[in-house]
Amino acid sequence: MFVPRIPLPLFAWMTLCLLCACQANAQGQPSLSLMPLPSSYEFGTGHLTIDPSFTVALSGYREARLDRAVDRFLRNLARQTGLPLNVKYARTGDASKATLAIHTSHASKAIQEPGEDESYVLEVTTSGAQLAAANPLGILHGLETFLQLVAITPGGFAAPAITIQDRPRFPWRGLMIDAARHFIPIDVLKRNLDGMSAVKMNVFHWHLSDNQGFRVESKRFPRLQGFGSDGLYYTRDEIRDLIAYARDRGIRVVPEFDMPGHSTAWFAGYPELASGPGPYEIERRWGVFDPAMDPTRESTYQFLDAFIAEMAQLFPDRYFHIGGDAVNGKQWDANPRMREFIRLHDLKDDQGLQAYFNKRIQRIVTRRGKIMIGWDEILHPDVPKNVLVQSWRGQQSLATAAQAGHRGILSSGYYLDLIWPAERHYAVDPMTGAAANLGPQEQARILGGEACMWAEHVSPETMDSRIWPRNAAIAERLWSPAEVRDPASMYARLEEISRRLDWLGLTHNSNYVPMLERLTGSGNIAPLRTLADVVEPVQGYQRSALATTEPTSATPLNRLIDAARPESMAARRFAEQVDQFLAGQHREEDSAARLRAQLALWRDNDSKLQPLIGRSFLLEEVAPLSQNLSTLGAAGLAALDFIARGEKPSEEWKAQQAAVIEEARKPKAQLLLTVAPAVTKLVEAASFQKPSPE
Amino acid sequence: MFVPRIPLPLFAWMTLCLLCACQANAQGQPSLSLMPLPSSYEFGTGHLTIDPSFTVALSGYREARLDRAVDRFLRNLARQTGLPLNVKYARTGDASKATLAIHTSHASKAIQEPGEDESYVLEVTTSGAQLAAANPLGILHGLETFLQLVAITPGGFAAPAITIQDRPRFPWRGLMIDAARHFIPIDVLKRNLDGMSAVKMNVFHWHLSDNQGFRVESKRFPRLQGFGSDGLYYTRDEIRDLIAYARDRGIRVVPEFDMPGHSTAWFAGYPELASGPGPYEIERRWGVFDPAMDPTRESTYQFLDAFIAEMAQLFPDRYFHIGGDAVNGKQWDANPRMREFIRLHDLKDDQGLQAYFNKRIQRIVTRRGKIMIGWDEILHPDVPKNVLVQSWRGQQSLATAAQAGHRGILSSGYYLDLIWPAERHYAVDPMTGAAANLGPQEQARILGGEACMWAEHVSPETMDSRIWPRNAAIAERLWSPAEVRDPASMYARLEEISRRLDWLGLTHNSNYVPMLERLTGSGNIAPLRTLADVVEPVQGYQRSALATTEPTSATPLNRLIDAARPESMAARRFAEQVDQFLAGQHREEDSAARLRAQLALWRDNDSKLQPLIGRSFLLEEVAPLSQNLSTLGAAGLAALDFIARGEKPSEEWKAQQAAVIEEARKPKAQLLLTVAPAVTKLVEAASFQKPSPE
Repeated sequence: MFVPRIPLPLFAWMTLCLLCACQANAQGQPSLSLMPLPSSYEFGTGHLTIDPSFTVALSGYREARLDRAVDRFLRNLARQTGLPLNVKYARTGDASKATLAIHTSHASKAIQEPGEDESYVLEVTTSGAQLAAANPLGILHGLETFLQLVAITPGGFAAPAITIQDRPRFPWRGLMIDAARHFIPIDVLKRNLDGMSAVKMNVFHWHLSDNQGFRVESKRFPRLQGFGSDGLYYTRDEIRDLIAYARDRGIRVVPEFDMPGHSTAWFAGYPELASGPGPYEIERRWGVFDPAMDPTRESTYQFLDAFIAEMAQLFPDRYFHIGGDAVNGKQWDANPRMREFIRLHDLKDDQGLQAYFNKRIQRIVTRRGKIMIGWDEILHPDVPKNVLVQSWRGQQSLATAAQAGHRGILSSGYYLDLIWPAERHYAVDPMTGAAANLGPQEQARILGGEACMWAEHVSPETMDSRIWPRNAAIAERLWSPAEVRDPASMYARLEEISRRLDWLGLTHNSNYVPMLERLTGSGNIAPLRTLADVVEPVQGYQRSALATTEPTSATPLNRLIDAARPESMAARRFAEQVDQFLAGQHREEDSAARLRAQLALWRDNDSKLQPLIGRSFLLEEVAPLSQNLSTLGAAGLAALDFIARGEKPSEEWKAQQAAVIEEARKPKAQLLLTVAPAVTKLVEAASFQKPSPE
Repeated sequence: MFVPRIPLPLFAWMTLCLLCACQANAQGQPSLSLMPLPSSYEFGTGHLTIDPSFTVALSGYREARLDRAVDRFLRNLARQTGLPLNVKYARTGDASKATLAIHTSHASKAIQEPGEDESYVLEVTTSGAQLAAANPLGILHGLETFLQLVAITPGGFAAPAITIQDRPRFPWRGLMIDAARHFIPIDVLKRNLDGMSAVKMNVFHWHLSDNQGFRVESKRFPRLQGFGSDGLYYTRDEIRDLIAYARDRGIRVVPEFDMPGHSTAWFAGYPELASGPGPYEIERRWGVFDPAMDPTRESTYQFLDAFIAEMAQLFPDRYFHIGGDAVNGKQWDANPRMREFIRLHDLKDDQGLQAYFNKRIQRIVTRRGKIMIGWDEILHPDVPKNVLVQSWRGQQSLATAAQAGHRGILSSGYYLDLIWPAERHYAVDPMTGAAANLGPQEQARILGGEACMWAEHVSPETMDSRIWPRNAAIAERLWSPAEVRDPASMYARLEEISRRLDWLGLTHNSNYVPMLERLTGSGNIAPLRTLADVVEPVQGYQRSALATTEPTSATPLNRLIDAARPESMAARRFAEQVDQFLAGQHREEDSAARLRAQLALWRDNDSKLQPLIGRSFLLEEVAPLSQNLSTLGAAGLAALDFIARGEKPSEEWKAQQAAVIEEARKPKAQLLLTVAPAVTKLVEAASFQKPSPE
């Protein structure tokens, strides 16, 4: 099988689809399920066997980071295969004898920058593999690709013979984690950096301050963490350690200190920074709040100058994020000094005042050798062009920014906290929408995008399952060619990468059962799992909207909504099966029998779950959801009966089912029964069936 | 309900059994499932609710270890409930307002010793809880008890009102981990120390050297780790850190350096220590080997004197384990100098020579302020009485040692690597057998016991599942009153503690699915899991005996036998159901239907599993096992049919089934189908049924 080398990504992709399908179906063949898919590749013949004699050699440019990368690669390979690879013996100096020979041409920059060469070439033959890259960044990516190539086969663990030439589509592929609203310990961040590295993301955007917490140790202003963090903050040593950990994985760390709004936590220790009178306490609720920094006082800029100087030194990245989003202006409007300042400086309004603030901050940031980033609210004619814009309000603002001469990254469409299915994120492309109409120079200003994990409803325990595996779909969007966009292929590979991420210690899969066991208070979770497998948290901002009591930072995140996965794979598979059944295999007995077994399980589940619900205060809210699942199961079974008999149901039955389904589609306990649409299809198929030709 | 306070453990235990049963059955009531069971207690009325307002106060004697213990307790409570407990705010100085008020009378010893007061009193009422102990050791145990009391209820998380007065039966309750044969990283040891602490074990016996590896950094003799460890050893800092970690959990760390045998790894760097000519390499095979230290040369004792001096400083515990087991004497017999030495010193034979060695070592150990421990081979009239004997060869040697004036601990019957069911370990009591006939003074010399985890076939990945949950049964044997010995109660609580141990990061449950996924190379593990759930590794030393190629330290531990649990809970439940069915509910339809469903699942499983087997070289060996499970399923179903019809099967059928069962009882892939005995019962019941009275 031959696929031309780059630059034919579309052809490559189509061929790969075929290959995937054929390999997955062929007994005994490993399937090629890389995520993200490489930009181009060419299959060879046969496999390279991976066994305990596996060795690695490094040649060309050397640095300690490469040695650590190889050691980590070997440990990951050992974990994923269970082979006893000893890091000491698996390293060899003789490239000609190594199973995997790595060649690096030269160093990457001392401080990683967007746009550095991240490409690599990986060639696997039956006798060995060669990985080559211009600099260590490409090597890091190539090692992750190699790990993903290794699969179990009838002949042993093996990687298929293949030549991969790979490079990213976008230079900026990020994940933002909000560590302000819920504090996220370093070990949780580290395993997520491991996950990012596995899917070739290269920017960790660390949202470090907000109304609900200031999470960095400041030497210069210790009351920031002292009064603004509940004792939950990162020490300077921890931060330096995390930055080194990220650099080892080819990941930049961009800090964000949100200002002038989202800053209540600063004011707990330094109320003089605020536009309104204090005292202030850490905010415990979620939402947009009034407190904002006072942009009219020189003392504010003196404070921020000293603060940014300290942070610019702690965080080596060239980019520095100042937030700049969502100031509601209430404190400014209420303060006569502000109105006078706006008039005196001819700033028009609050937006003008914020632009003034941004310009002042930009000068401070620039003086410290950094490039400023802000959310798209900072877009204002007065804001200097070298400011990078992070677009969260829509693709239009990204295009607008590019037209105005700003470089930008897209986050609109990549908010993981909105609990969208992976395919919805996957369909969002930084270059489509308004960006599609930009000229080449403007398009070149679009550097990529960032997934965002806002943490109102996320704890260290649940964070991994909100990020993974969906984040891998966003990572592929930002790395792979634009033509790679088939959701079916994405989902097949997403399930595979999700499983592989388990070896890195990510808890998106492993926490599921313990959290269900906590809810039942016992190891008997089968009926709860049957329900949990087919529910999803409500999307968008409905979780707060539908809450019976206002959620705060003291709200436990231990309910079914927290254990439930953002996307139900079981429901997706059931919907596929219903579609296949209705598409023509009505009389195919297997297909109907499979649906029946599933529907009967749901119908009978409520009577098994209710006793567990009676014993657990946390399950009380789940009772109506469980009843609805049973009702849906019964409705689906009845619909199958009508279809099997070729009999049209009565109007009364139809009305009953419509009512059942309407009820089942309503969120309960902020959860949706994701099988309702597929059952609706069955009921409609029964209701509107044509007379059987038989 | 009233139960008299200590010392009425038998009555308490019987009442507790009743309580457990009644509480487990009562809907909405939390069951009391402590492990180990306390020595006495008295139930109150109602519950103490555990919510985010939970606070802890410390009074009386204070030390940093207590503060760390409370912080850890709070983090564990938060993890197990999902409540957002902030360590900073959950601490209060005001004992009268605290949910849990802790009072400590005085310090424990600076270096923990066996026999220190470990008792505590925990009183929980509806309004608060009080924990009191003489010293921090009792507080540590009481906190673990409190964590186990907290359960989910219809009204919230709660601990039942109860007064517990608890103290250990034995002062020495240990777990030995062999880190020599497979190196076990510090983080794996730490989570196992967490587990030990949860079940109130207080000695971590660290087997640090053997033929296959020398695992400690020696400053004085760096060739020990340099040539004897493949680079896999603990640094001195790591050791100090682990010892501090253990002390924080009320656990002593007893190091073992096995000598004069089991010492090939020493000779890789220092061949001059050996009785035979070198050179030596790290041993890669398992078993008993010839190399032994030279007990005839003064230079050996000079070396060991310096070495023990260094290690005695590194390991603060009063006890120092010198192994002393299994010298086969071949090197000694082959060496004329040895024979001459034996004659000159009137030592009779090799055993006399070893006793001479032991005596010399004992003097060195004593000079360093330590008490020597050795395996029961060291028992010899010439060995000083203050040497503590660890009995592994049987209970007789423990009694013999006690009669000879030695203190001793029992490990015979507690070898976790023999893959016995928990109840078999649980039935072993240090005070029964030969020990039962000892006088009180001799009995007092029996300090307790140690579970042993020898690591020929154990990797860091599989270790937790070989230790847990079975080790909790041994922990209960060593802590709880002798009268606590009902296996049914133990198993009920074992499943509960197993689940709770998950929160500590132990991987005995969480590694199961990923290891099965590795075997299938996909997320589709259902049929493999059906099989894996009902197999157990062969017991005793059969794993090596049945191996097709000799296992070594390079043998991957990634097969089904490594994923399989040492004890199949599914098989145990099935056996119970069969017994219940045969005991008289023949005509009870539910009982028969449940058996039928299970048997049909097994019968139909092979056709689902075979395609997965075809794709994985690691599953090839499993094919006959899978076929046998199907055959057993079919046999059981046929037996049920005969029973249902009241019809006696033909002789031919009986003969066929006998052959099927005989085949199914044979180990395959070193695994046993644990449902074979229960199916045999069904087949026999069908074969020998009396005419139905109907």
